[in-house]
Order: sequence, then structure tokens, then C-alpha cells
Amino acid sequence: MTRRPLIYIGNDDGIDARGIHALAEFVADLGDVYVVAPREQQSAKSSAISFGSRLYVERNAGYPAGITAYSAGGTPVDCAKLGFHSLLPRRPDIVLSGINHGSNLGINTLYSGTMGVVVEGCLLGVPSIGFSYTSHDTEAPLEHLRDTVRAITGEVLAHGLPAGVCLNVNIPADTELRGMRVGALCPGYWTEEFIREPDEHGRDSYLLSGTFVNTAPDDPTTDVALCDRGYVAIAPVLVEQTAREAIAPLSERFNR
Amino acid sequence: MTRRPLIYIGNDDGIDARGIHALAEFVADLGDVYVVAPREQQSAKSSAISFGSRLYVERNAGYPAGITAYSAGGTPVDCAKLGFHSLLPRRPDIVLSGINHGSNLGINTLYSGTMGVVVEGCLLGVPSIGFSYTSHDTEAPLEHLRDTVRAITGEVLAHGLPAGVCLNVNIPADTELRGMRVGALCPGYWTEEFIREPDEHGRDSYLLSGTFVNTAPDDPTTDVALCDRGYVAIAPVLVEQTAREAIAPLSERFNR
Repeated sequence: MTRRPLIYIGNDDGIDARGIHALAEFVADLGDVYVVAPREQQSAKSSAISFGSRLYVERNAGYPAGITAYSAGGTPVDCAKLGFHSLLPRRPDIVLSGINHGSNLGINTLYSGTMGVVVEGCLLGVPSIGFSYTSHDTEAPLEHLRDTVRAITGEVLAHGLPAGVCLNVNIPADTELRGMRVGALCPGYWTEEFIREPDEHGRDSYLLSGTFVNTAPDDPTTDVALCDRGYVAIAPVLVEQTAREAIAPLSERFNR
Repeated sequence: MTRRPLIYIGNDDGIDARGIHALAEFVADLGDVYVVAPREQQSAKSSAISFGSRLYVERNAGYPAGITAYSAGGTPVDCAKLGFHSLLPRRPDIVLSGINHGSNLGINTLYSGTMGVVVEGCLLGVPSIGFSYTSHDTEAPLEHLRDTVRAITGEVLAHGLPAGVCLNVNIPADTELRGMRVGALCPGYWTEEFIREPDEHGRDSYLLSGTFVNTAPDDPTTDVALCDRGYVAIAPVLVEQTAREAIAPLSERFNR
């Protein structure tokens, strides 16, 4: 008899977000589901970890029977590390993160706590997928994402992912879903025009704002373009950080 | 007359750390130096940003004449974004981060706030370098790092860096410096053995601990091996996150 896969689920919107409840429920029959998620909203935490801080863990009773859920007072990656190394009964067979309320397209992958969890799973050598829904409405219906989430999760459970590669999946809102396409993270940058304004006590402060500038607006294969045309965008993300091609030319300049 | 380069300096140990004071002073004559650093210790914050939080900025009078310094109540990358988009008089010509008190070798690059600043500079299209000193003693003498920091900074100011590539420089402590070598980030992982123990009120808590496992212990070209042998390790870091080689094979599996 084959053991059921162990499915780890994390997120950055927190243990009570509708997106993570939906994700856990969508895949509940595919394996033994363990949820370990931040107690509170932890968006844009990237791969931040809490060195030197005490983390408190609680069982969460808000999930359906058969799903084991914990919350912890740390970052998304703290929760992943707690799960992988202290709370799960064995190494996970797959790591899922999300469903994030809001897109994580292009360069935003870098800042995303949702994707921080996914990168952490990939570093552990486990096939890992982040799911984001491009609606920021935390009350938006999610039921119609079920087939997409199950199809991608099932394919990865069956056939794995290339070593060192994880997936960043964005599902477009406000459109008929036309299908799924693999594409690149959209290149671009933020014009971080901070809003400078007084706070409620009249003290000068800055609020991060800004607009994403797409530097490949005519490329139909970026994740941004795919979502714009109604496709589920699946971007493969590399966890390796060394710029290997730069080692030889830079060695000539710096080795001394 | 050529304009002096604008040098942005950030860190994750905070505006009052000795490492950032040393870095600013080492390069003060190479350009117009602007320091924008977190008000407090922000280690292991990766590329985290503070969306929705008010950031308060203060001029800091603790730096030598000729160096303009600000502190802000955010993450290292918040400070970089504030600097680049609101506080600096023009686009920086180079971004420096550190000198971090403690190493940022191998996989730790991912979690490092020092390197978060560097990645942010690289995304802006500016040559960017992170400096870390492998001593965790925040009172350790740093003066002997002057020539190394100036040599690397001067070379990059003169000749730039390949597009999309930034540098992670680690300088070994407790050794004679034998020279500089370009190498790869050391592959490996953390065995995150959390310490589970009661806090001062007897409540169960977890403290992140763990040991780095080097999975290439016999490779003499990793940054870990270079530092161990007394070399300044210069690792080129790639900012691109798309796993381009995976797009074609994954398209066959997922496009439907």
C-alpha cells in the first residue's frame, strides 16, 4: 500500500485567510494536509526569518476534519521552517502556498511572502508551488479555481519538478479562464513614488506606493501578458542565486 | 569637469552599527556619500518591504562632515527604496551595503537584509556590492578592511558590473588576508533544529537555531571554502528569477 502524500500548505495572508482555507479544501483528498501559517497578515515579507525571537505555535481548530492546522507568530518562512523541521510528522511530498489574495507577478515574486514559502520548500528539495489570484478582494469567490489548483498540484505530485525549480502560478480574476500557459516572470520595475504626507499627529511620514513599469509590454509570453489574456500563468522560478556565467570574467578583474 | 559619483550606502544592522560607519568612512573620498539605513537592527529581513506602514525618516548627525545620513523605521529594502526614490538628489552611481557584522555566505544570501539592499540596487540598474565581515563581534576592529573595500569599490566604479549581476563580498576574520577570489555561493542547507523551550512565563516557544550543512565540502571555489582559506570571497549574484531552461519542458506538461 502506498502512503498518502504529505501536503504542506503555507501562505502570507495568515491562517484565517479565505485563500488558504480554499487551497487546503481543494487538495484535501490528494494527501495528508498540514497547514502551518502566520497568525497575522505577513504580506511582502519575502524570505525574512525571525532570528532571536521566540515563536509561539497554536493548533487551529478552524479547518475541516482531516486537515491538521497550526498558526505561529512569525513570518511565512518561519512557519515553513517550523513545519518542515518541528511540526510535520515527516518530510512533505509537496509544498503549496496561497491562495494569495492579489497577484504575485514579475518582479513582485522577490518581495512575496507567498513565494518565500515556495522557495523554502524548493531549497528543502521538495516540489513547491505558489498560487495567487489576481483579485485583492479578500471576499472574492474562489470555488472556480478548484480545477486549476487540482490540475497543477496533481501533475506535480505525479511527475515532480526539475531540481532547483519551483512554480509561481497566477490565476487571473475578472475573466473567463482560457487555459494554462508556462511563461517568464515579467521584467520591469517599480517607480516607488512614496506618498509623503503628515500622519494623524501631523508628523511627516512616507507611505510606499508606486506603479509597476512593464519593460516588455509587447512580449506575449510574460506572466503579466498571459494573465491579461485570461490564461493561468505558470512561471518557473530558479532558486540558485550564483551568476555562474559571470565567474570567469569577474575572476580576471578581481582575483589578485 | 566630471561630477563626483553618488554612493548610496545601506545595511541591515542599523544606522548606528560600526560596520556602516566604517564603510562610509572608507569610501568618503570616492564620491558623494549618502547613508540611508534602518533605525534599528533588521537582520535576516531578506527583501521584505513595509506596504501600508508609515515610514518616518530622520537626519542623522552621527556621521563625519561631508556624509549625508538618514535613518528610517523600516526594513533595509524600505530604506533603499526611500533613498533611491525620495531622499537622494539623483540616481546613485553605486550601491554599497554593510559592512555586515557576521558572514552572509552561501544560501544565507537569500535571507540577508544586507543583500536585500544590494539586489534592490541591481534591480535599479546600478552596480551594487554587499560587504560582510565574518566576525559576529560588533566591536571587532574593522580598519584593516579598508584596502579591500576600496579596491573592490574602485574597480566597480571604474568598470561597472554585468547587467543583472551584483556582488556578495565576504571578508574572513581571524586570519591573514591572502587576497581576493571570485567564487560561487556555497550550496547547502540549514538543519533548522528549533530549540523548543518554555519562555520566562513557562509558555512553550520555539527559537530558530540550526546548523549549516555544506553539500560541497570538497569544492575549493565556494565562498565558504575561500573564506576558510583566508581569501576575500566575491560571489556574483544573479537577480533574474525565471528558470528559463525549464520553460520549454514545463510548457509540454502544463500548457492545455
